[in-house]
Amino acid sequence: MDEFSFIRAIQPKYYKHSSVIKGIGDDGAVIQPSSGTQLVIATDTMVENVHFSLEYMTFEDVGFRVLAANLSDLAAMGSQPVYYLVNVSSPHSISNDELIRMMNGMKELADHYHMDLIGGDTTSGQELVITVTVFGEVQPNKKRLRSTAQPNDIVFVTGYLGESGYGYQLIQDGYDESNRYFHQRHKRPEPRIDFVEVNQSIQRLCLNDVSDGISSELNEIVQASGVSILINWDRLPIHPSMIELEHKRLEKLVLSTGEDFELVGTCSRSDWEHVQTNCKNNGINVTKIGEVLAYKHQKPTVYIEKNHVKKRLNQSGYQHGNDKGD
Amino acid sequence: MDEFSFIRAIQPKYYKHSSVIKGIGDDGAVIQPSSGTQLVIATDTMVENVHFSLEYMTFEDVGFRVLAANLSDLAAMGSQPVYYLVNVSSPHSISNDELIRMMNGMKELADHYHMDLIGGDTTSGQELVITVTVFGEVQPNKKRLRSTAQPNDIVFVTGYLGESGYGYQLIQDGYDESNRYFHQRHKRPEPRIDFVEVNQSIQRLCLNDVSDGISSELNEIVQASGVSILINWDRLPIHPSMIELEHKRLEKLVLSTGEDFELVGTCSRSDWEHVQTNCKNNGINVTKIGEVLAYKHQKPTVYIEKNHVKKRLNQSGYQHGNDKGD
Repeated sequence: MDEFSFIRAIQPKYYKHSSVIKGIGDDGAVIQPSSGTQLVIATDTMVENVHFSLEYMTFEDVGFRVLAANLSDLAAMGSQPVYYLVNVSSPHSISNDELIRMMNGMKELADHYHMDLIGGDTTSGQELVITVTVFGEVQPNKKRLRSTAQPNDIVFVTGYLGESGYGYQLIQDGYDESNRYFHQRHKRPEPRIDFVEVNQSIQRLCLNDVSDGISSELNEIVQASGVSILINWDRLPIHPSMIELEHKRLEKLVLSTGEDFELVGTCSRSDWEHVQTNCKNNGINVTKIGEVLAYKHQKPTVYIEKNHVKKRLNQSGYQHGNDKGD
Repeated sequence: MDEFSFIRAIQPKYYKHSSVIKGIGDDGAVIQPSSGTQLVIATDTMVENVHFSLEYMTFEDVGFRVLAANLSDLAAMGSQPVYYLVNVSSPHSISNDELIRMMNGMKELADHYHMDLIGGDTTSGQELVITVTVFGEVQPNKKRLRSTAQPNDIVFVTGYLGESGYGYQLIQDGYDESNRYFHQRHKRPEPRIDFVEVNQSIQRLCLNDVSDGISSELNEIVQASGVSILINWDRLPIHPSMIELEHKRLEKLVLSTGEDFELVGTCSRSDWEHVQTNCKNNGINVTKIGEVLAYKHQKPTVYIEKNHVKKRLNQSGYQHGNDKGD
């Protein structure tokens, strides 16, 4: 890769945020975050054939997806995207033009959120490895932490669950135009920044993004908040086209496959109505899937009720044994 | 790699900076930079067998070196290190314990500069790829940009040039205890944060770090500042043990091998005496190597004078033809 021509090709002509004092072109970027706001920083690394494949994704798709996964973390913190960094290590078989296409896929999403590319690094390696680091701004009292769930909260999730995993499986089966919706859910997930924006008025929201599956995300919430949660299988939002899937397969897709980059969280009962209204008015699907139990627990646990039987739902989605206790 | 046990092993028990509102353990870190300061962000990716080798470096050395290279960028911007992120993609042949040793090598340097590890990501891949992102704080009027060199400035460099490259060559020749100094200069370079600290009183300093060799760094300065520079070969600081090296080899090491992570820069003639005193009082070597020419130039150029002949020094260190013009 010719690093200099690559940088020239991707270097922004101007920066959208006046807080960017110095962008690309020195030993580092310089920013001056708006006074009174805090800066959220999230970072993700994706490796070819581990997190994505160029066999069924375009370079633009790859760029889009890596940035989307990062933006999902900013959403889960309740922050508004502002800047990003991109580090790429790539084999000689990938051309400058292909890397620029990947950057363009990111830029499409970045432009939508008015983000500035402020730096990064490119180097050669045996495989394509992409690290994206994103920055978001948040008002100090509007951070959405995993640790803020409270007894009796409503537990909700945005969108449908398991679509990305299902899309991935359909892609393996070969291209079929009628499955395009699910393919795109895998290749170009939409971070739920919109949910964060429309619910700015809510004082307390506990949020996590669905990257590893809701089993994992809900367990993170109960651990961080010291509460227990009960969700109902029948309430989980599942796309109509997926309902008829073989049950074990469906269960895995919905509970533990992840990568939907939707948001799962909790809010007070009194705020739940406002959250619903805010989402409805802005075309965002949000579904109540359960409740935070009434008491704090020494051993924070996630339970799932299905066919009137309550089981423990652990990190990996596996429900072992019956557990009607609390 | 077991990501959870790895994170548990490296997660700080407390954060040194009160500006870290939320460290590791949610979807992102949250920071609140000190009011009135700006944040410098730099990032570098290093790949096994491209930027380092485990054949002659310990895991601790690798961690140390990757962070040192990043801190050198913070120094070149005039900033004080505060936080860092680490993204690692590694093959299954590398154990959790080995990755923790790498993190410990970073931590040794990070602790020295009171830095906090605030996040990162770990994933599997075919080869070891490490991305480190560092954050530094700087007073708005004390940024040290490449674009601030002015006509008649003194051009200086810290330390000696070519030591890292020479150390690398000596390592290839096999281990010899008497060469330990140069080996260490390659494996564990010292970022020149100290130079930045002791020269806080200087109003204007133009700085660049010697990562690609002074030919490249000086060309970046003249391009960004719109000036031309003349340096003298005889003034370049070279370790006494290297003086006797075959001339072409020495020239390459000193001008273009880089990775010394020293600082090269310019300051006004009136400040030069203060810079020298500040450095001397704090045990930092600094050497005048040339001057910024008296006029701005349409084609910013770096010249080197050797044996009373002035030649152009281009980005890669190659001096082509005679050029007594200006």
